[in-house]
Amino acid sequence: VSFRDEDQFVRWLQQRWPRRAPGVSLGVGDDAAIVRPARRRDVALTTDLSVEGVHFHRDLHPPRAVGHRALARALSDLAAMGARARFALLSIAFPPSTSRAWLSAVYDGIGALARRSDVALIGGDTTVAEGPVSLDVVAVGDVNPSSALRRDGARLGDLLYVTGRLGMAALGLELLRTESGRVQARSSRRHGRSEVRTLALNAHLFPEPRLSAGRYLAERRLASAAIDASDGFARDLGRLCAASGCAAAVYEDRLPCPPAAAATRLDRVELALRGGEDYELIFTVPPSKARRLPKSVGGVPFHEVGEIRRGRGLRLIRVDGREAALSPHGYDHFRRST
Amino acid sequence: VSFRDEDQFVRWLQQRWPRRAPGVSLGVGDDAAIVRPARRRDVALTTDLSVEGVHFHRDLHPPRAVGHRALARALSDLAAMGARARFALLSIAFPPSTSRAWLSAVYDGIGALARRSDVALIGGDTTVAEGPVSLDVVAVGDVNPSSALRRDGARLGDLLYVTGRLGMAALGLELLRTESGRVQARSSRRHGRSEVRTLALNAHLFPEPRLSAGRYLAERRLASAAIDASDGFARDLGRLCAASGCAAAVYEDRLPCPPAAAATRLDRVELALRGGEDYELIFTVPPSKARRLPKSVGGVPFHEVGEIRRGRGLRLIRVDGREAALSPHGYDHFRRST
Repeated sequence: VSFRDEDQFVRWLQQRWPRRAPGVSLGVGDDAAIVRPARRRDVALTTDLSVEGVHFHRDLHPPRAVGHRALARALSDLAAMGARARFALLSIAFPPSTSRAWLSAVYDGIGALARRSDVALIGGDTTVAEGPVSLDVVAVGDVNPSSALRRDGARLGDLLYVTGRLGMAALGLELLRTESGRVQARSSRRHGRSEVRTLALNAHLFPEPRLSAGRYLAERRLASAAIDASDGFARDLGRLCAASGCAAAVYEDRLPCPPAAAATRLDRVELALRGGEDYELIFTVPPSKARRLPKSVGGVPFHEVGEIRRGRGLRLIRVDGREAALSPHGYDHFRRST
Repeated sequence: VSFRDEDQFVRWLQQRWPRRAPGVSLGVGDDAAIVRPARRRDVALTTDLSVEGVHFHRDLHPPRAVGHRALARALSDLAAMGARARFALLSIAFPPSTSRAWLSAVYDGIGALARRSDVALIGGDTTVAEGPVSLDVVAVGDVNPSSALRRDGARLGDLLYVTGRLGMAALGLELLRTESGRVQARSSRRHGRSEVRTLALNAHLFPEPRLSAGRYLAERRLASAAIDASDGFARDLGRLCAASGCAAAVYEDRLPCPPAAAATRLDRVELALRGGEDYELIFTVPPSKARRLPKSVGGVPFHEVGEIRRGRGLRLIRVDGREAALSPHGYDHFRRST
């Protein structure tokens, strides 16, 4: 199969992307895909663009990870809405020099995460063009109309939570860049150095969208607002607060930072606050519902890290009790040079 | 407003893309958009990638046309399914040197066509990256589950039709490239040279997706199969036949070629058969239903140009009655260097 001919490419894709899946009336190969929406559910739609040189680098990221991460970013948006992920489409532009093996592995990375997430790959578009490889993933989900997790629902007094662990993906990127040369073990009460290394690399290369946690929070109406921490905890929390018209305070000692064994030249708290691409969920819960919140869902822990306050902006409460302004900057798609 | 900051960009976009539209529960600005599907309709989804240097050139195409054409390509896919167009999302990557005025005009081009087509712009993604400008448009429509126009429904004896006029967009591109210097008027029975020039430039720069015609054909169950002529009539007809497992014969003298007044160094029949980006609909109608087919829908004429035959491949029936094989090649996204 040559990738120079669009029809052959579509046939190659059809072999990889099964045409029959629940809810799919018509998959890859026609002018458009046709799906059947679930009854009494709204449809959630998101697109995520991943561009070589910005979101990934061919010399750092194996092609399976390039595919996985592109789909994971889009699925994470659905998770942050409390939606059930159902379908995905992929538009991809690649230069003529791209090898078939590299492209195959990108599709394998997408396919493996899609299968695991019960997501049917139903279409897309493909162009051979000079320039960076770019992937645009469209993710389609469905959600209970009255319980979608929006950014603008946080209210004064709500408790602030985050799933999983923060800063691990940024640590993984640092490890990739330095080829783990500078990583030093300081402590290994729970995690040894090599175990942390594996966790961090996995967090960066194969982040897991928090779909189960998001659906749990939405369908039980536990969360008042949610966003995913794609651009860093502080930045995305700032967005949630701006949308909700409120402020937030975060307790430094409650942040689920990378383990101490991971110590690099990077500060663990800074990693947790600024490191991007964790794809954890940041969410708020009214105090009256906090008792009903479990410790974890599907193995993903929920950490209470602060609270919603009146006003604007973010505050960081240091270990010694002093408060400081927390700048809502982070990892910006518009600025970063990963 | 600076385009270097994603949040400001989103705010700028929110001002241009109204958040309230029928069926839109949540528009631009959250992790995902949320829409309400129409009752008892399936959802049609398509993505179309437009990359600078392949699908457009900044020195040939005004930015309004870049935006219009990107959306038109995606809406044309919905038209070819017989779907009603409802929502669109836009992912865009552009280099840091891109001017705000140029980007604004691209969005204006998208916005004007969207408004005219009753399409709500509900989201997307944006990245600043070195390399060509690339736009991925996601178009979302709805369709009667049992009457979507697929490519694979053509049957032996069906009559073959095409909407509008073929080859005009390719002629328009030729005019753009040659700055109309080589255009010579030979005849002007119906169209004068300057009128043809305007029609051809418009067909290339501002193609009109055949949404009304597609819905008419689907909802009255007149067409057995359809595809849009995005890559040229012969190529897309070849795709329809391959999907349906049949052959087709096309009568040269019935092809709605560019008017003779348009005469350039390009052959009119070749323009009609091979010229891409017309976004007309190619469709088949069982003979029993042909009488119910109107001459036109919404001002867009239907031309009967041939018939479906047994076997494989395409045949061209010349004016003198002789038949020749018609190669299904055309304008390939993978090869073209517009």
